[in-house]
Amino acid sequence: VIKVLDSQSFLSQSMNIILEDAVKKSTDVKEKVCEWRSPEELKELLDLELRDEGESESEILQRCRDTIRYSVKTTHPRFFNQLFAGMEPYSLVASVIVEALKPSLYTYEVAPVFTLVENAVLRKMMELIGWEEGGDGIFCAGGSMSNMYALNLARYHHCPDVKEHGLSAAPRLVIFTSEECHYSIAKSAALLGIGTKNVYVVGTIPFFVNATAGTTVLGAFDPLEEIADICEKHNIWLHVDACWGGAALMSDRHKHLLKGIHRANSVAWNPHKMLMVCLQCSAFLVRDKTSLLQDCHSSRASYLFQQDKFYDVSYDTGDKSVQCSRKPDSFKFWLMWKALGKGELKQRVDRAFMCICRYFAEQIKQREGFQLLMEPECTNVCFWYIPPSLRNLQGHPKFWKKLHTVAPAIKERMMKVGSMMVGYQTHKDRVNFFRMVLVSPQVSTEDADFVLDEMHNLGKDL
Amino acid sequence: VIKVLDSQSFLSQSMNIILEDAVKKSTDVKEKVCEWRSPEELKELLDLELRDEGESESEILQRCRDTIRYSVKTTHPRFFNQLFAGMEPYSLVASVIVEALKPSLYTYEVAPVFTLVENAVLRKMMELIGWEEGGDGIFCAGGSMSNMYALNLARYHHCPDVKEHGLSAAPRLVIFTSEECHYSIAKSAALLGIGTKNVYVVGTIPFFVNATAGTTVLGAFDPLEEIADICEKHNIWLHVDACWGGAALMSDRHKHLLKGIHRANSVAWNPHKMLMVCLQCSAFLVRDKTSLLQDCHSSRASYLFQQDKFYDVSYDTGDKSVQCSRKPDSFKFWLMWKALGKGELKQRVDRAFMCICRYFAEQIKQREGFQLLMEPECTNVCFWYIPPSLRNLQGHPKFWKKLHTVAPAIKERMMKVGSMMVGYQTHKDRVNFFRMVLVSPQVSTEDADFVLDEMHNLGKDL
Repeated sequence: VIKVLDSQSFLSQSMNIILEDAVKKSTDVKEKVCEWRSPEELKELLDLELRDEGESESEILQRCRDTIRYSVKTTHPRFFNQLFAGMEPYSLVASVIVEALKPSLYTYEVAPVFTLVENAVLRKMMELIGWEEGGDGIFCAGGSMSNMYALNLARYHHCPDVKEHGLSAAPRLVIFTSEECHYSIAKSAALLGIGTKNVYVVGTIPFFVNATAGTTVLGAFDPLEEIADICEKHNIWLHVDACWGGAALMSDRHKHLLKGIHRANSVAWNPHKMLMVCLQCSAFLVRDKTSLLQDCHSSRASYLFQQDKFYDVSYDTGDKSVQCSRKPDSFKFWLMWKALGKGELKQRVDRAFMCICRYFAEQIKQREGFQLLMEPECTNVCFWYIPPSLRNLQGHPKFWKKLHTVAPAIKERMMKVGSMMVGYQTHKDRVNFFRMVLVSPQVSTEDADFVLDEMHNLGKDL
Repeated sequence: VIKVLDSQSFLSQSMNIILEDAVKKSTDVKEKVCEWRSPEELKELLDLELRDEGESESEILQRCRDTIRYSVKTTHPRFFNQLFAGMEPYSLVASVIVEALKPSLYTYEVAPVFTLVENAVLRKMMELIGWEEGGDGIFCAGGSMSNMYALNLARYHHCPDVKEHGLSAAPRLVIFTSEECHYSIAKSAALLGIGTKNVYVVGTIPFFVNATAGTTVLGAFDPLEEIADICEKHNIWLHVDACWGGAALMSDRHKHLLKGIHRANSVAWNPHKMLMVCLQCSAFLVRDKTSLLQDCHSSRASYLFQQDKFYDVSYDTGDKSVQCSRKPDSFKFWLMWKALGKGELKQRVDRAFMCICRYFAEQIKQREGFQLLMEPECTNVCFWYIPPSLRNLQGHPKFWKKLHTVAPAIKERMMKVGSMMVGYQTHKDRVNFFRMVLVSPQVSTEDADFVLDEMHNLGKDL
């Protein structure tokens, strides 16, 4: 009575749809970045209800097409809305291998290849950070998790009793970070029972400093050497959130932005951002070599981590994680690196920093009606578009108030046209501005020009 | 200078390899479940080093083949080693769509389809739980994360000040759970600053009870109604970890195992286990309708969660998560459900419980040299294989000591032969036994017979 499916035929048909619609068409600059529908319209179009009866193969294939059609094409050359973009075929193939094999990284016996791959990739990343004697690490479900690991390890390092006895065993702990840091630091502080109000606060017992290499909005780099000097002097755990800016370590020309990173106790670095590995791929790296990561997170479940196995159980890395099932995200980075070599990865990073980002910033300076927030340090370029109606209002009290409404209005129009996607936000006392994120080597100077032309077209009547 | 790749040709070649080797061959009962190599041998075979130079397309295709060859085939009909198994083509297609589109669930504008799908799937799961008035929820990176969310929400519900002020704002908090619960409860208690020693402890201020519906090793169900009575009386948050046993909610015949689950404050349920959705797919569901999930986890990052958008921002669900990037795992469940209908899912669950699991347990009772630990409540069957040399030692002081070495020895042989994979462990004072996990409708009674025959073949000389 089990529904019989000719899976090979269904799978080949689906793969053809995916290659055609979700890969080829989605990355075609002549196609739209998004096909905007309001939530109400989209619900109608998709028929989301889950029923007792199944649907035919051809109906399911149509659902695949519709899902792709109405999804945002984050791999499109004109998607600049997030800190990831572009289509990386090697990494995509690695992803699909992972999906088909359904591995989970508990133990060597269940995931032998992926366990060794993770180890090789972590070692290479530590080499780039400059930890000549190695260290430890693990891939996490995103950069927020990697940052949370850092906080937890630092706390455990500082007061190991917390693992068993909770924070009642510890004095009040506070965290130092810059106000530009990613929100995951605050989220982690809340989750770990430290409290968001204990982030930023000076005094009592600082145990953790978070430095950011490539901030989310402005792409700014904290001065790591200076921060490391202070942390070393006071014996404070230094974590570097290099989720975004870590890619610069690939480049001899740009790695100076992270000078001093080798002095960090831990580093978070997401190859799924500027290095374009498929989502997710986030490494948490720790300099400690005394098995702190294992000691801090282990719970020694007997059904997974038997000690009477017939191979070296130090290859069973699953207990270093707070997850149980965990995907082998490192493989997506590994296969891509194998294919491209560091030489090509370095060129891509250089190209993003030097060619496209510099070109885009120069264009903004030259074009009337565009204004940079600051010179870019990373490959985020933050700027205002000032419509003609506001250009002679500069200095007027109403100028900023009116300018504040421009970015949301242009964003709405760009989504509805579907020609590109660029994010906007406020920042401290700065009104809404655009943040252009340049990642993909598939982006050309023509695409950069297009963004500025299109922004003017969409906003000139505002 | 950017390496030019004919991605369409490379992608089609890779997809063919994946469909042939990682899908067709991996699920073929005549092929091996694993191709065991020691870590040292496998390192030699794989050439893991990441270099400056890239490799040719044909070398990369060979690496794909090797990765698949030496990986464990968790989708093989004779893989019984984990709480997941089998190949579900609809869910696989959904996974590949997700990998190709690279979506992340922050906001409606970036992931419109997947945001609505998640919502629809959560609503359906809540309906199955019996929350007639709905609730809230989110898909997490695995069941451990879902359980951690429960703990954090309960704590926030109990002492909202903890979010800002940390545990210094709270009295000592303790957690009740059974000793059979999943280790993620202890891991979460450590992470959240509650402390593992405050799990199980009676006294002080209990704020959280974890009940397990389908324990990891024995597959036992806690009596939810009785626990709910006590929790209601004392106003304690009741969380049900139904990661494994939740699938029984699909079946009218077996849902009585979870009777009372609608009285829980929160539920964790992993469709990637018995329902065979591709890894990972784990839902955290909460009965509260006062936006507790949002209030507890939100940090209101301005670059994502702008309030001046042109659509209803209540569709932007990203701030309910402690992750930032988050994959649309619900889609893999949704597409599969759409294809199969609840009717088919129900049949599969019934088949796993009734046909295969019952058959296997009966066989164990009938065959000489096999002994059940207990009658199975779920689809885990725990048993010992007693080799002929030990059969007349029963009752002898050396019996248990010798039996303890049998399962690891058989496991080593089965891995090296590659004929099947079944996990083993100790449990309290019980020596090593096998835990057979029955999930996939692709498993037949012949496969069940094979396991017992093969176990005898591999272990009869011990």
